[in-house]
Amino acid sequence: MEEKLRQLKDKLAELSDLFYTSAVLGWDQQVYMPPGGAEERGNQLGTLARITQEKATSPDLGKLLEDLTPFAESLDPDSDEARIIKVNKKDFNKATRVPPEHVEKFAQVTTMAQQAWVEARQKSNFSLFLPHLKEVLELRKEYISFFPEVDQPYDALLDDFEPGMKTAEVKAIFSKSRPKQVELIRAIAGRPQVDDSFLHQAFDEKKQWDFGTEVITKFGYDWNRGRQDKTAHPFTTDFGINDVRITTRLAPDFLNTMLFGSMHECGHALYGLGTAVELERTCLAGGASLAVHESQSRMWENLVGRSLPFWQYFYPRLQEVFPQLASIPLEKFYKGINIVQPSFIRVEADEATYNLHIMLRMEIEIALVEGKLKVEDLPEFWNTKMQEYLGVTPPNDAKGVLQDVHWSGGMIGYFSTYALGNLISAQLWEKINQDLPDLPEQIRAGKFESLLDWLHEKIHRHGRKFEPQELVQKVTGSKIDPAAYIHYLTNKYSDIYGL
Amino acid sequence: MEEKLRQLKDKLAELSDLFYTSAVLGWDQQVYMPPGGAEERGNQLGTLARITQEKATSPDLGKLLEDLTPFAESLDPDSDEARIIKVNKKDFNKATRVPPEHVEKFAQVTTMAQQAWVEARQKSNFSLFLPHLKEVLELRKEYISFFPEVDQPYDALLDDFEPGMKTAEVKAIFSKSRPKQVELIRAIAGRPQVDDSFLHQAFDEKKQWDFGTEVITKFGYDWNRGRQDKTAHPFTTDFGINDVRITTRLAPDFLNTMLFGSMHECGHALYGLGTAVELERTCLAGGASLAVHESQSRMWENLVGRSLPFWQYFYPRLQEVFPQLASIPLEKFYKGINIVQPSFIRVEADEATYNLHIMLRMEIEIALVEGKLKVEDLPEFWNTKMQEYLGVTPPNDAKGVLQDVHWSGGMIGYFSTYALGNLISAQLWEKINQDLPDLPEQIRAGKFESLLDWLHEKIHRHGRKFEPQELVQKVTGSKIDPAAYIHYLTNKYSDIYGL
Repeated sequence: MEEKLRQLKDKLAELSDLFYTSAVLGWDQQVYMPPGGAEERGNQLGTLARITQEKATSPDLGKLLEDLTPFAESLDPDSDEARIIKVNKKDFNKATRVPPEHVEKFAQVTTMAQQAWVEARQKSNFSLFLPHLKEVLELRKEYISFFPEVDQPYDALLDDFEPGMKTAEVKAIFSKSRPKQVELIRAIAGRPQVDDSFLHQAFDEKKQWDFGTEVITKFGYDWNRGRQDKTAHPFTTDFGINDVRITTRLAPDFLNTMLFGSMHECGHALYGLGTAVELERTCLAGGASLAVHESQSRMWENLVGRSLPFWQYFYPRLQEVFPQLASIPLEKFYKGINIVQPSFIRVEADEATYNLHIMLRMEIEIALVEGKLKVEDLPEFWNTKMQEYLGVTPPNDAKGVLQDVHWSGGMIGYFSTYALGNLISAQLWEKINQDLPDLPEQIRAGKFESLLDWLHEKIHRHGRKFEPQELVQKVTGSKIDPAAYIHYLTNKYSDIYGL
Repeated sequence: MEEKLRQLKDKLAELSDLFYTSAVLGWDQQVYMPPGGAEERGNQLGTLARITQEKATSPDLGKLLEDLTPFAESLDPDSDEARIIKVNKKDFNKATRVPPEHVEKFAQVTTMAQQAWVEARQKSNFSLFLPHLKEVLELRKEYISFFPEVDQPYDALLDDFEPGMKTAEVKAIFSKSRPKQVELIRAIAGRPQVDDSFLHQAFDEKKQWDFGTEVITKFGYDWNRGRQDKTAHPFTTDFGINDVRITTRLAPDFLNTMLFGSMHECGHALYGLGTAVELERTCLAGGASLAVHESQSRMWENLVGRSLPFWQYFYPRLQEVFPQLASIPLEKFYKGINIVQPSFIRVEADEATYNLHIMLRMEIEIALVEGKLKVEDLPEFWNTKMQEYLGVTPPNDAKGVLQDVHWSGGMIGYFSTYALGNLISAQLWEKINQDLPDLPEQIRAGKFESLLDWLHEKIHRHGRKFEPQELVQKVTGSKIDPAAYIHYLTNKYSDIYGL
């Protein structure tokens, strides 16, 4: 068995190397690749995807996993070995359902679609993206057809991002929270509004960059094992457990874009960098799920980065860097960065409205997948729903249906994880504050080590060992539940808006 | 046959994708990777190398090549198809001669040797490097033993860098040029020396960068299919025929480093970007050899970039960018950038002395490989030869025998390609000037299109179709011959030094 386990680990190490190799090519594509390289990069990613798929579905691997199953059952079910075998069995079973031709086609189509999306968004011209999105959608439907046993078609997509989660569960969670969020937003709308005009003025980009760097360095981002670059649509990417990079974008006339964006991506990166070394080059490196990942990014961005204690520490420094803020008192600044305002762009949405952007997208995705909405009708449907949920209509498609990169990359089924992440972040935050009662004091002193240690211990080091519901249950004592988030929002905005 | 040819092309496309994938990982490693990522990147590159080697030597590929040989022989021998089969057969035969154990041992030994070399050079202590160089040499001898059919042992090494070139040919070429170069240098030494002190002063790095960009944009570097980044040791790398990137370094107090470095790398890049689209994802993309590649970089750097017509166009612009040059007349500037000064370090050598650095190294390599020189005696041999060829003796081994990285990486047989590149560049230049009699006028007007078109037509588009001697013969009517280079040097320096 020792020998078979070693063989399995060798195979997983190879798969892990190939996975990270594709990640490097993808990062370069989005950050530095000249446009002319798109087609060849598509070929390269296609070839890598095919080779990876061949190895991830090889009969040798299947045999090893079969042979090792009795051994895994004899182990502590929470041991690394038992979980490596269990998680890899699930991965293997899913991967063997999908024909290699599909995988290669998908890589090629999405590479071209991403390039088209960049141009379409730039020109605010949906028709440039339309044929690509159609192709992507057809491929996603084909993918779903490989999993005929799912309760609902959308489950097949969701499971890739939230292992074990069902569409019905997510819908139930959203139904529980939606009315409360809508109610909160209405209550806020009835109160005197907050002024955040001081955030919309010229802020030197170099100084923004340096301040953002200062903040995430304090958070504990290890520059020896990471770096930050500029990109159109910020993301974090892991090239291993010792090279986890973030990207950000800068707005010359709005402070929040880069500032909270960098904190957000840093939250993702701290997760990847906190993976236990024992999980290196196994299938367990990486996060439990996208929602758990998002719980980390949102925690650093919002629960830490938009909190009063945080700014009690950092605001004097920010005022030093940007003297135009000297006349704005902390209280006013704090309210400004927490303004609630229905808006067009998801990534710029405030905490109170954010999840509504997600619910809109999930509704669209389910309708597309179930054939109840045509791709051609997307822009109109989008705008109608925006009016219905948020009371605003985007002035153009760049600020509407073209704003997100996800669909061009084939990531349908992804969006709900953002909203679930918000919910999990608040659930964890309640628990953290029980375990670390002086956390607000620490943050007020610019100290984040205990928080990061707690997250490393409870969440980060486990990588993919546990499914999201299992992990949340282990750490907080209950499954994903919107109560903590609603409680957090209500408290926070009662204070800010005097509800 | 059509089907088998298609199968072959599929396999070559896959190998090409894997090759470029490794190139992306290597580029990132040298340009952007945080230090913490080194070990995992090593794993990723190792895995890719193993997978690539398995595919490059697979019996399936061998069978296809065998089956296609009669078909290839029925084709026009200069057709793309015939050459794809011919070149791939040679690649396959070479790759299958070398046992995987040797490849692995070689990787291990050179990894250790490179570490030892870094320390040895730092401490200028050859004895630290000695045992490693011995091991490297033994492995190179073992490699040679896999090719018992060669005329001379060194041929087996040379062929990896200059396909088809024989040691005897290179020796003959160098014997013909060496006395003339030595004579020229002595003549220059007897004349009043040139002043280049104005090149050694503070030059704003951003302005250097922008000026370099302006120059290579004029050369025709296509930013839609390339980019430039900073690195410690500049290089050019191909990620396909539509994404060829250059790197450069900046010295804050010396103009030449970035300026001529960028032109040099741009020359390499223009070669890669000029590959015929028909050769995309075949074994024929890429340059004919390292020497032919170097002929391109040296042409743009020296024959164009260090010429008087070039500076007649660009010098007023350079003076505008750097007003501290306003008082330096063009003539003085031109002489300054062409200063001849025997020195210890190859990479800093001028056009007149450069090849002598190479000849010294090749003589040593052949003597080592043939057992006529002991590794222990290397430093003394080096210093004696430096005195003989260049009239200088290095003050220590760091500035002598330990200066280059090549031997520690096992690259014995590589150096001569630099000198051959210089010779080829001058041969091509003579032919170009016959074909384009108004080229000096064009350059004086900042126009490089005809030159680039000529190079595309005669050299670039062919990729690896022809071996270097074959290509030079086709284009210039004779094989590689040092006469043109000697003629060029003599003319140029007679003018500058008033010989």
